[in-house]
Amino acid sequence: MPTYSNLDLVKQCDRFPYPQEEPEAYAQKVAGYYKFHVESCDSVLGFILPATVKELQWPDVWKVDHDRKTVLLRGRTREERDENVATTLAAERERAHFKILSGWRNELYPVYGPDRSILVNIERAASVLFGIVTYGIHMTGYVKTDDGLKIWVPRRAKNKQTYPGMLDNTVGGGIASGETPFETIVREASEEASLPGEYVVKNAKSCGTISYFDIRDERVAPGGEVGLLQPECMYVYDLEVPADFVPRPDDMEAEDFRLLSIPEVQAAMANGEFKTNCALMLLDFFIRHGIVTPEGEKDYIEIVSRLHRKLEFPGA
Amino acid sequence: MPTYSNLDLVKQCDRFPYPQEEPEAYAQKVAGYYKFHVESCDSVLGFILPATVKELQWPDVWKVDHDRKTVLLRGRTREERDENVATTLAAERERAHFKILSGWRNELYPVYGPDRSILVNIERAASVLFGIVTYGIHMTGYVKTDDGLKIWVPRRAKNKQTYPGMLDNTVGGGIASGETPFETIVREASEEASLPGEYVVKNAKSCGTISYFDIRDERVAPGGEVGLLQPECMYVYDLEVPADFVPRPDDMEAEDFRLLSIPEVQAAMANGEFKTNCALMLLDFFIRHGIVTPEGEKDYIEIVSRLHRKLEFPGA
Repeated sequence: MPTYSNLDLVKQCDRFPYPQEEPEAYAQKVAGYYKFHVESCDSVLGFILPATVKELQWPDVWKVDHDRKTVLLRGRTREERDENVATTLAAERERAHFKILSGWRNELYPVYGPDRSILVNIERAASVLFGIVTYGIHMTGYVKTDDGLKIWVPRRAKNKQTYPGMLDNTVGGGIASGETPFETIVREASEEASLPGEYVVKNAKSCGTISYFDIRDERVAPGGEVGLLQPECMYVYDLEVPADFVPRPDDMEAEDFRLLSIPEVQAAMANGEFKTNCALMLLDFFIRHGIVTPEGEKDYIEIVSRLHRKLEFPGA
Repeated sequence: MPTYSNLDLVKQCDRFPYPQEEPEAYAQKVAGYYKFHVESCDSVLGFILPATVKELQWPDVWKVDHDRKTVLLRGRTREERDENVATTLAAERERAHFKILSGWRNELYPVYGPDRSILVNIERAASVLFGIVTYGIHMTGYVKTDDGLKIWVPRRAKNKQTYPGMLDNTVGGGIASGETPFETIVREASEEASLPGEYVVKNAKSCGTISYFDIRDERVAPGGEVGLLQPECMYVYDLEVPADFVPRPDDMEAEDFRLLSIPEVQAAMANGEFKTNCALMLLDFFIRHGIVTPEGEKDYIEIVSRLHRKLEFPGA
């Protein structure tokens, strides 16, 4: 059985090198990728693997420049760009070359420009092909008891596409284009834990964000493409729930919920039982609530910084 | 009267370029500095201005390499290195060339290596000459009232060396070598706000760190050297205080304390009335307490990331 330190848990999700720490490794890695651009914006919006550039069938709404290593999506308006991406990806889904597209979600993820406007929307399952920043929400449902805080922890269904059977956060999910973080929390809290909307609206507390830059490996979805880039930003919420409330899954995504003590949660984290980014949200929760402290955690500063990575790309 | 956005407030303290955002500006800036090293460790421990290298009188316990732009402190043990720095700086203080040394504190700041051990201790007033990471604590004392949270805000004495007359955090201070963050909180809470040690030990809640990379300008201490580098890391604490407790300064550092509502604090922040890094601690407090939210703050993600910058140098 592996034993992960808290810093190990962070490193499982935040795997891209830091330029200020490893300037050469960083520059080499970045130079190896194609940069994703859209017409009318100079910013790099994501990193694309050479293998993806080679294997994807790019219709002429794209301009692929192998010398400059850029992939440019044409389209003067967002609507045009949305249409161009949708057509490209529908053909790829049909062709079934990329395993990752078998997890098609029919859900659009936004790509933001430097002025925080949406430049284009991309099918969720394809987001990692473009290495764009994806956004989600995570909420920790906790109960104050005489024995200290306890946390409601669900186990993911064994048939979930990603991280089957692993422990999860009380509520979590991706933010689809056009939805606000708070709207997503209210919707997911109802779907995943049967938490009444009125209660969530009144009591969910926004507590910051977590961000990290992952490189996708076999753990996510066995058999899928590896090495894809996944910069992510999660909006973090806390929700104190009444002692007599028992969450239950409303949508088959979770098997069951258990109310765990902090030591039980920490033991499961150290055993690698949590979905990797959920361990990060819990670490952030422990840090904000004075459970993990500078005196008790030798890697405290590094952990706090790496839980809030400044990403390479424009953000929401 | 200026009006600062929350992101403006962050930018006032976090002024060093980000390598992932402005790679050329970053590389150019870093290439312009001398790198501070100590014998027996490969890590760069701070950035030194060429003007400092030129003006400081380096005895032969230092090896200055103008080609490689390095400044190496000799000494096989920490004790030797401490002694060598102390002798050098005592002579500089006597010579009185550097204005910044007129703020001599008789307080040592630690410099950490990659294994988190202390490599050398340096007089606090000289820390910015070497551009080393400095550590401090900040605690926000707040009261829960029927009208929402209120915060105890002191005004700095008009004769303070740095940021005279500006608004400050309830409790704050530098961590001297050998002191833990929590010991510092307890000591400073007594000195600065007459908060009883027993109450602080029981109720102060550790809530993370804030880190940023500042470039020192005239605001800090009028008439002093400018352009000096100041990477800082602050341990953050919250303290709920009883409604009937009134903090009072015990050490002449503050003029008075006032209990301000959140809108009053935010207005003073926007007016630039707070010591610059105190505004950052308050922003972090507002984010953790759901007062500043993703829906209400367009720069939310950038602010959260920049409040937790991963610094270039090994840390505590």
